[in-house]
Amino acid sequence: MSLLAYEEEFLETLQKISKYEQAYKLMYWDMRTGTPKKAREERFEAIGQLSADIYQMKTSARMNELLTVLFEQKERLPEDTLRALEEAKKEYERNKTIPEQEFKEYMILKSKAESVWEEAKKASDFSLFSPYLEKLIEYNKRFITYWGYDGHPYNALLDLYEPGVTVDTLDQLFAELRKSIVPLVQKIADSPNKPDTSFVYKHFPKERQRELCHFFLEKLGYDFDAGRLDESVHPFQVTINSGDARVTTSFNECDFRSAIFGTIHECGHAIYEQNIDKALSGTNLFDGASMGVHESQSLFYENFIARHLGFWKQYFHKMKEASPQQFEQVTADAFYRAVNESKPSLIRTEADELTYPLHIMIRYEIEKAIYSDEVSVEELPSLWNEKYEAYLGITPPNDAQGILQDVHWSDGSFGYFPSYALGYMYAAQLRAKLLEELPEFDQFIEKGNFQPIRKWLTERVHIHGKRKKPLDIIKNATGEELNISYLIHYLEEKYTALYL
Amino acid sequence: MSLLAYEEEFLETLQKISKYEQAYKLMYWDMRTGTPKKAREERFEAIGQLSADIYQMKTSARMNELLTVLFEQKERLPEDTLRALEEAKKEYERNKTIPEQEFKEYMILKSKAESVWEEAKKASDFSLFSPYLEKLIEYNKRFITYWGYDGHPYNALLDLYEPGVTVDTLDQLFAELRKSIVPLVQKIADSPNKPDTSFVYKHFPKERQRELCHFFLEKLGYDFDAGRLDESVHPFQVTINSGDARVTTSFNECDFRSAIFGTIHECGHAIYEQNIDKALSGTNLFDGASMGVHESQSLFYENFIARHLGFWKQYFHKMKEASPQQFEQVTADAFYRAVNESKPSLIRTEADELTYPLHIMIRYEIEKAIYSDEVSVEELPSLWNEKYEAYLGITPPNDAQGILQDVHWSDGSFGYFPSYALGYMYAAQLRAKLLEELPEFDQFIEKGNFQPIRKWLTERVHIHGKRKKPLDIIKNATGEELNISYLIHYLEEKYTALYL
Repeated sequence: MSLLAYEEEFLETLQKISKYEQAYKLMYWDMRTGTPKKAREERFEAIGQLSADIYQMKTSARMNELLTVLFEQKERLPEDTLRALEEAKKEYERNKTIPEQEFKEYMILKSKAESVWEEAKKASDFSLFSPYLEKLIEYNKRFITYWGYDGHPYNALLDLYEPGVTVDTLDQLFAELRKSIVPLVQKIADSPNKPDTSFVYKHFPKERQRELCHFFLEKLGYDFDAGRLDESVHPFQVTINSGDARVTTSFNECDFRSAIFGTIHECGHAIYEQNIDKALSGTNLFDGASMGVHESQSLFYENFIARHLGFWKQYFHKMKEASPQQFEQVTADAFYRAVNESKPSLIRTEADELTYPLHIMIRYEIEKAIYSDEVSVEELPSLWNEKYEAYLGITPPNDAQGILQDVHWSDGSFGYFPSYALGYMYAAQLRAKLLEELPEFDQFIEKGNFQPIRKWLTERVHIHGKRKKPLDIIKNATGEELNISYLIHYLEEKYTALYL
Repeated sequence: MSLLAYEEEFLETLQKISKYEQAYKLMYWDMRTGTPKKAREERFEAIGQLSADIYQMKTSARMNELLTVLFEQKERLPEDTLRALEEAKKEYERNKTIPEQEFKEYMILKSKAESVWEEAKKASDFSLFSPYLEKLIEYNKRFITYWGYDGHPYNALLDLYEPGVTVDTLDQLFAELRKSIVPLVQKIADSPNKPDTSFVYKHFPKERQRELCHFFLEKLGYDFDAGRLDESVHPFQVTINSGDARVTTSFNECDFRSAIFGTIHECGHAIYEQNIDKALSGTNLFDGASMGVHESQSLFYENFIARHLGFWKQYFHKMKEASPQQFEQVTADAFYRAVNESKPSLIRTEADELTYPLHIMIRYEIEKAIYSDEVSVEELPSLWNEKYEAYLGITPPNDAQGILQDVHWSDGSFGYFPSYALGYMYAAQLRAKLLEELPEFDQFIEKGNFQPIRKWLTERVHIHGKRKKPLDIIKNATGEELNISYLIHYLEEKYTALYL
């Protein structure tokens, strides 16, 4: 077989995998937006079948052959094929270095662990979940030895979500963050200059919220011909194919923020996906560069655009029209202040912009301690509570609002949390560069003209898909290495103006 | 390998096929209820991939081996396995007797023909479609010779949808039908006693229609924990798995009938699917006994229940509440008469209960003529128009409202139409037996107590799935062979009371 024939077969296999992933992702979307109760069991079986088939295609002996032959002659491959090859090879090796039996047992463990975690959270009892967590950590520690790593063992896990980012980098970034943010959080807690948020919790009819979500999605440049908005318990974004980037949201009639800001957050993810180079469709490069880069886009839209004063100068009247009584006595400025309220809180997903990175830092420090054997599973709840007291000045009253709050660990996702904070840093660094190149940024927002901003982000980030690695994207876009000072500066400036 | 091992592998293969079919059907459902425009092309490719995989599993060499070995020892197989085997074998043979190359060409032809038909219908120009129709017929004529048949060649096509039903049977049934219905249609056309239908076309808000559709589905016993209602261009029912029988409807704000009766029609299909024995889940027997038996259930709900006077005595007030102005001057009786208006019309899908079978009869006679080489493709439009004049007293003004109105032929579905009429005959025969065994039928409807009716139909029809053949289901349920006099009697009685 010629090199060309190998390349063709490799690319065809990627296309086939992507078709199965379409089916898989549609079933996933359906499960979260409207699969009837009695359909779930059989739906799980079908999802299991397809994901097993996808796994099989990615790890078959033939795939190994293709990867080996192509890699031997990698200099002769077109650039995109080479990147696709690197990604496929990495995934192949990651999967195949785990003995098959162990991989299967781990999959079964994960599928059980999630429901055990649910029960434990409901009962607010960490001891129910800890035997599973213990095993999940054991497996991951073994996987790390199979995969190998440089420096800290936790680096092997970070590499799953944010290739190129290491413990050394994160330690330094979080140290700087802690140094500036912890005192700022304290100053704000002590400030008498607090916003009035009482109107936030007044009744806002769901149907009006839905209309507004549609309105904002359209205004921000979400393409409804390549996506749709639905309802789910937790908002999410899923890309089913290159013309189908769906978003979901959840409505709370006693707090409009979850739908409005949740939708705009997912809108940021979706606009990323809608603007990846279509030439990559059906390959493993039609994807965000990393979890963190993806999060940078959702946070950009949610925080830098939708929590911007100019945004509400332009659109507050839409809120008033949708729920007139609620906002009768409220000004755009007061509204802006209320939706930017900052206060130490227990639940990550409900945290404000300023305290949010501290929630991530706590998880990062705990995960790092786990994977350097510095803490046992049974010590985790007390370690968790100590850190919340130290960084946020509050202690969770129970496990449900503490260590059990997030689903990630039950799914074996260790090393994932830092991406949330990295995304925030990426976003702030991108924003600083954008302000330099588009100094009319604030006016654009105030006029509801998002096209230049979207265009800038597309050219620097979206279009590349997974062609470039996360840190390269940031460096190419901004001309420098990852630098946390942009985020610190942004937060200090914004929250000083708001509170101090 | 032991017989048991063969049986197990066979059943596992059926389960695997059914999981792929779940994914396939969900993509199909999504395509018709909300796939974004730009997602369609890649979605078609994924659907194509999965259907090719399903075809491959059904026709693999290994499947042939399983079928052969098991069939040799069929006396030793459990009853359900044997029936599943018969179905799988029939499908295998039907597919494999067509040379592979020819099968592929036919698939490509079909995929093109549908869009050509759409264009031709839009332009109302049969000559655009006729070259494709010509080829589709040629292929099917060849297939018939591969498959073989007894008696008339058209029997081979009838067998695809209604196993056991032949031209001899249909000729006799339709002759009787024609004899009674054609004069009755004429008498009604001449009757001065016409219902007032003006209020039907008044504005009925879509959201109120949607609520009513939900209401009726629930009342009739549709299980929303095992299904859902969505909107699509044409109403349909699709069963994604044994706990997921979805229905769709379409709303016309200037004619509530399409949503209300369309939904109840699909409800009949769905209640059938929701009540098939769950022991058959994931096998090829988890399905209706035939197209015709399926249609008998949808027509039963649509016509015998929802077009029953008692139904509107009970529920007309709901219509009034939903659209008060529209029905201000209307009585339940006048409403009943209006939704049972009968008049000769050109479009099958809009025809009333009485004239509907004539539309089917015309298609049956034409298809039979095609497959006995009695008519050429170019003669079809004039043959069509002659028959409409002869049986319904009207002539289509153009091809779009005549021979091009239905999609079926473009999909190669010849032999399908008779099932619509057979379904109606089955339904009427079942109704007659039900009236005998549940003489309170009318009162049940008038009281909105549908449970005894549903239970009766489940025990006689639904529960069996594809375990029994269509004519056996009817015979077992009613104690006699298919007999068209029940349908004729029903129509004569109902329409005499309404019009004469």
